[in-house]
Amino acid sequence: MLKAGRSQEEIRQHNLGALLRHVHLGGPLSRTELADLMGLNRSTIMGLTGELTAAGLVREELPKDTGRAGRPSLVVRPESDRVYVLAFDVRVDRLVAARVGLGGTVLDRREAVRPRAGADLDDVVGTLAGFARRMHREAPPDAVCVGVGAAYCGMIRPGDGMVRFGPNMGWVDQAFGTELGHRLGLGLPVAVGNEAHLGALAEHERGVGVGFQNLVYLHGDVGVGGGIIVGGKLLDGDGGYGCELGHMMVNPYNGRPCGCGSRGCLEAEVGEQALIDAAGRSAELSGREGARAVVDAAGRGDVAAQDALRRIGDWLGIGVANLINLFNPGLVIFGGMLREVYQGSAAQVHSRVEANVLVISRERVRLRTSALGDDATLTGAAELAFAEVLANPLEVLAHGAGRAGAGRA
Amino acid sequence: MLKAGRSQEEIRQHNLGALLRHVHLGGPLSRTELADLMGLNRSTIMGLTGELTAAGLVREELPKDTGRAGRPSLVVRPESDRVYVLAFDVRVDRLVAARVGLGGTVLDRREAVRPRAGADLDDVVGTLAGFARRMHREAPPDAVCVGVGAAYCGMIRPGDGMVRFGPNMGWVDQAFGTELGHRLGLGLPVAVGNEAHLGALAEHERGVGVGFQNLVYLHGDVGVGGGIIVGGKLLDGDGGYGCELGHMMVNPYNGRPCGCGSRGCLEAEVGEQALIDAAGRSAELSGREGARAVVDAAGRGDVAAQDALRRIGDWLGIGVANLINLFNPGLVIFGGMLREVYQGSAAQVHSRVEANVLVISRERVRLRTSALGDDATLTGAAELAFAEVLANPLEVLAHGAGRAGAGRA
Repeated sequence: MLKAGRSQEEIRQHNLGALLRHVHLGGPLSRTELADLMGLNRSTIMGLTGELTAAGLVREELPKDTGRAGRPSLVVRPESDRVYVLAFDVRVDRLVAARVGLGGTVLDRREAVRPRAGADLDDVVGTLAGFARRMHREAPPDAVCVGVGAAYCGMIRPGDGMVRFGPNMGWVDQAFGTELGHRLGLGLPVAVGNEAHLGALAEHERGVGVGFQNLVYLHGDVGVGGGIIVGGKLLDGDGGYGCELGHMMVNPYNGRPCGCGSRGCLEAEVGEQALIDAAGRSAELSGREGARAVVDAAGRGDVAAQDALRRIGDWLGIGVANLINLFNPGLVIFGGMLREVYQGSAAQVHSRVEANVLVISRERVRLRTSALGDDATLTGAAELAFAEVLANPLEVLAHGAGRAGAGRA
Repeated sequence: MLKAGRSQEEIRQHNLGALLRHVHLGGPLSRTELADLMGLNRSTIMGLTGELTAAGLVREELPKDTGRAGRPSLVVRPESDRVYVLAFDVRVDRLVAARVGLGGTVLDRREAVRPRAGADLDDVVGTLAGFARRMHREAPPDAVCVGVGAAYCGMIRPGDGMVRFGPNMGWVDQAFGTELGHRLGLGLPVAVGNEAHLGALAEHERGVGVGFQNLVYLHGDVGVGGGIIVGGKLLDGDGGYGCELGHMMVNPYNGRPCGCGSRGCLEAEVGEQALIDAAGRSAELSGREGARAVVDAAGRGDVAAQDALRRIGDWLGIGVANLINLFNPGLVIFGGMLREVYQGSAAQVHSRVEANVLVISRERVRLRTSALGDDATLTGAAELAFAEVLANPLEVLAHGAGRAGAGRA
């Protein structure tokens, strides 16, 4: 309920964040461009950039020769080397950590192969905190960490980053976000999200989904997850557990068993193992590399592999058709291993979309592969980490930031 | 982008609409209650109710004896007899029209059975306009029509109420909203929505879904439509054609043919005809009454009818489980003919939800039948019609309202 107009102070805070978001997502922009984008006059822009510059969040530079007469408009750049977040990605097969500068530049990156099962909370958090320590040590002394985000391959409780269900690691109700925050010792909370949710956000902000208000992102590896943007926002549902499109039942008669305990779920029919089994190569192949080997074999003309891809593509197409009917999206994005599966079975997927989607709902939908590739989820974790500084730039820098030194134990 | 604070005038407009919405949806409320609900002080409330009273939208009355000492707080009531909308509902089997007063009171109501097929745009619009004329004629002379809304059993283009696809009537790209507006001659636009979308809105505002931020409404008759509320808002998708849950494929092997040209869609497996066929009674029964006869027979112990309901309930359960996995809703609502089907097959539906929904996603979801029953869609049409006056109360009353007399040709 509106009680009164926003105060000048609230408007200023809002505009500071909005300007910072523009240069964070759009890259260096001139004052004139910012004035146009934000619908503000140049003196207001100058005031805002002045404050952000003083806080060390952006810097202003003369542009390279514009070739135009007159005094050039200063270009506003994010302080990518000085202001950064830590982003973590707990994947099925590896742990990834990155130091990501304002503006989205990956400044440092580490990863470790993770044993398939049996990694407990302590192992994972310990490895990630070790990465963070080493990355902090190599950061410039005046660099400031303004947030921490993590992607996890499971169902996450939004408020505290509790892993409610992480089937690949056998985790149930593990306090991942809280523990990682303690171990990092930066005095910053850790924002945790489901990997496919974050992949969708990343594609929406920095990938193939920029400008789309409604999109569906399917992320495949061992399982199949989803992130769905509805009206510009991630669909989270009552508890934050929405978008579980991998557990849409597509094969009710003789469906393959699924990790969730059911059968015939989309992820059981189109996950990595389904593809390997369909190609009759489960004795020799497994996991991501195994699935990729089948796709490669199909590309080289292997008939069994081609047939396997076609069958998987048909199930994928049924799932995608259902999602288009439900969400009337402008875009469907295939991420993770589903990029390769879609590329190898696009004809089947399109054929199902033609046959099963209402004509009007498929008038404008496009099907595309992820632009960010395997780093979509890590990028999403970084964006989650940046959210707070983009909402309250000066406040976070004044109170909430962890100095790089704080992490050096 | 925020350029400046909202002006006092904008805040006042907003608050006028918000107050009117409270008494429209919540019924008569005292000034004290309104002050609490809106977080405003009593003198501001007094100013707002004064303006709305002067405009003839509400009236203030002394409450019945409160039993408390001191001066009682005046009660603010919507002017239900004086301010109304026209609501229309083009259903598969009938045309319904109502004059609905501010506050949601149905003041007058007419309906006609519609021949199953072959009704063209002119027939439908003519019948509805005739109802409107007769209802206007019997309205009090000082009554004011502030909006017109219509529910239609098909896919509707939001801006102009074009019926893009109305399979039951064989309509493709028929300018229903525009034509109805012309024929009514009130100088008011007609807001048209898909019947299941409007059913969902109605249940969300006045039915079993009040207070839920995420819900799925399934509406069944010949077909199965859906309205899905995500984060408090109807999911519309890029073109306004989202929520087509009836065309989610649930039976990919030997699915029944669907009106959309595909097979095995949820609506093909759980629509009226599926139930009648499953009971082996297609020679004698058809339509809504036929489906109801099967449900009644099952209730009386007819084994074939019970078995049919169980089989239909299993498909319904698969569809519902998929939707819960996707939307993590707090509530699933069965409307139209699916109320009876769900009541007769709740065990099958629950069993599928148990088996197919991720444990965490079903922690809090409830399954309920529609509270508004067959009038959910008509109620939604009325709410659509009220939207404009609730957004800009004084402006609509000053400029946009059609006098009852205007419709008397």
